[in-house]
Amino acid sequence: MCPPGCLHSICQQATRRGLLKAGFSLGAIAAGASQFTATPVAAATPSAPATPKSFTDIIDLTHTLFEGFPTYDGAKWFSIEPALTWAKDKLNINRWTLMEHTGTHLDAPLHFSENGMTVDQIPITDLVVPLVVINIAARAADNPDAAVTPDDIKAWESKNGAIPEGACVAMNSGWHKLLDSPKFTGADGTGKYHTPGFHAETAQLLMNERSVKGIGVDTLSLDPGIKLGEFPVHYAWLTSGRWGVECLANLDAVPEKGAWLVVGGPKVRGGTGGPSRVLALI
Amino acid sequence: MCPPGCLHSICQQATRRGLLKAGFSLGAIAAGASQFTATPVAAATPSAPATPKSFTDIIDLTHTLFEGFPTYDGAKWFSIEPALTWAKDKLNINRWTLMEHTGTHLDAPLHFSENGMTVDQIPITDLVVPLVVINIAARAADNPDAAVTPDDIKAWESKNGAIPEGACVAMNSGWHKLLDSPKFTGADGTGKYHTPGFHAETAQLLMNERSVKGIGVDTLSLDPGIKLGEFPVHYAWLTSGRWGVECLANLDAVPEKGAWLVVGGPKVRGGTGGPSRVLALI
Ligand SMILES: [Mn+2]
Ligand SMILES: [Mn+2]
Repeated sequence: MCPPGCLHSICQQATRRGLLKAGFSLGAIAAGASQFTATPVAAATPSAPATPKSFTDIIDLTHTLFEGFPTYDGAKWFSIEPALTWAKDKLNINRWTLMEHTGTHLDAPLHFSENGMTVDQIPITDLVVPLVVINIAARAADNPDAAVTPDDIKAWESKNGAIPEGACVAMNSGWHKLLDSPKFTGADGTGKYHTPGFHAETAQLLMNERSVKGIGVDTLSLDPGIKLGEFPVHYAWLTSGRWGVECLANLDAVPEKGAWLVVGGPKVRGGTGGPSRVLALI
Repeated sequence: MCPPGCLHSICQQATRRGLLKAGFSLGAIAAGASQFTATPVAAATPSAPATPKSFTDIIDLTHTLFEGFPTYDGAKWFSIEPALTWAKDKLNINRWTLMEHTGTHLDAPLHFSENGMTVDQIPITDLVVPLVVINIAARAADNPDAAVTPDDIKAWESKNGAIPEGACVAMNSGWHKLLDSPKFTGADGTGKYHTPGFHAETAQLLMNERSVKGIGVDTLSLDPGIKLGEFPVHYAWLTSGRWGVECLANLDAVPEKGAWLVVGGPKVRGGTGGPSRVLALI
């Protein structure tokens, strides 16, 4: 390890902070300084530092998780019980038992693939990304089987420009406001479910013709509910090495363009996903 | 809900983004515009927008959580088992069982108080804060009972200026590099533990004479290990309504001043804390 002030550690920090780039080294500065003292030298000019991301406010896109958080089949996927209590122990600690895919949560590639990345293997830089919000709430209010289509993506781009490199594309279906309603699971009593999601062709478009890290939904599933048991989007998208985030909250509070999404996913060895703290920086 | 373009929703967005402040309304703009068309009017000038926070890189301060993550008494506080598997179900989901205070995790006020805030009640804006790093690694290498003292805080301030409003003050003791060593728990075989932490007087200083939201450590406990069973810092700090974060990783990778800490704590109803994704934006 470097002692404080060591050039190696200073250089490491500068590189990490985007101040130094490939082709620009402390050696080059020293050489430039010794050879050209009078005139600034173009060759020694560093490439532009990474554009800073900036924000002034923070919006929480996370639902509170509780026993009874909706699941398609009504099974309890999260439970919490006191393990140490103030009355007995003068401190409080609870024990949780949970299935990974409950609450506002991350889907890692392994969730729907044989050998995909586990949740702890997703690079952190892939979890802080530009947020694109596709609002289909008006359509979904009339039709809970509505899906984000390739035309929705193209309409967003006509208005806002190309989807940013490395973005997360999130569906705002209005379902984030229906957590307390039977509409959240959309069970129709005949074994079918009706909740909005991504059309399989949209997943293909985003995988093949755009550079997107993740997709997000404010429903229980990336796939529309009527696909339950088929999961074409889960299989295609997660197998491709990309991630998804489900049960997003509060999407009406973020702009359709310009926010940064922070997916505070669990760093659990071998995990297929799990409850996450998801924020928008705006 | 507002339709797109509605003034109410534009105003809401602008307020959220710090563009409009108390005393400055769309009404005032309209009045200003109608009464004074030639000269800009001081009274209608908005107060300065919030200073943008900016970053170019992201550092993960989270240890990977696994069965066997160190605990003081060696008990297993996290376990993971397959619930649905690729071989049988063509998808993967695990079940976790955990005690809230394991891995890199958040301590909510309720953890060491009778009626303090639960983890889901901590405002999200209190979890994205300036990061102050106090490095006592050299001293702790010689003495695992070392503590962050009021003098350490004052030395940091002499060099860097006052601790920023609303900061998290984190101890870098070097213990984040000792996860695989018996030094991480510091058990000495006689029932005592030796790990660095915050001195109780330092907690008092930060509570009473600075404006600090949280404290952080790269060890298992905010209190030095030799205090185990007493917890003066846990009781004073958490009872005051502030939070703590324990088992931080990778603290050598962040500057002692200037980073933004994002504590992606679990939003679990009634929780006393829990495994968190913790990032530094630099
Ligand atoms: Mn899922
Ligand atoms: Mn704790």
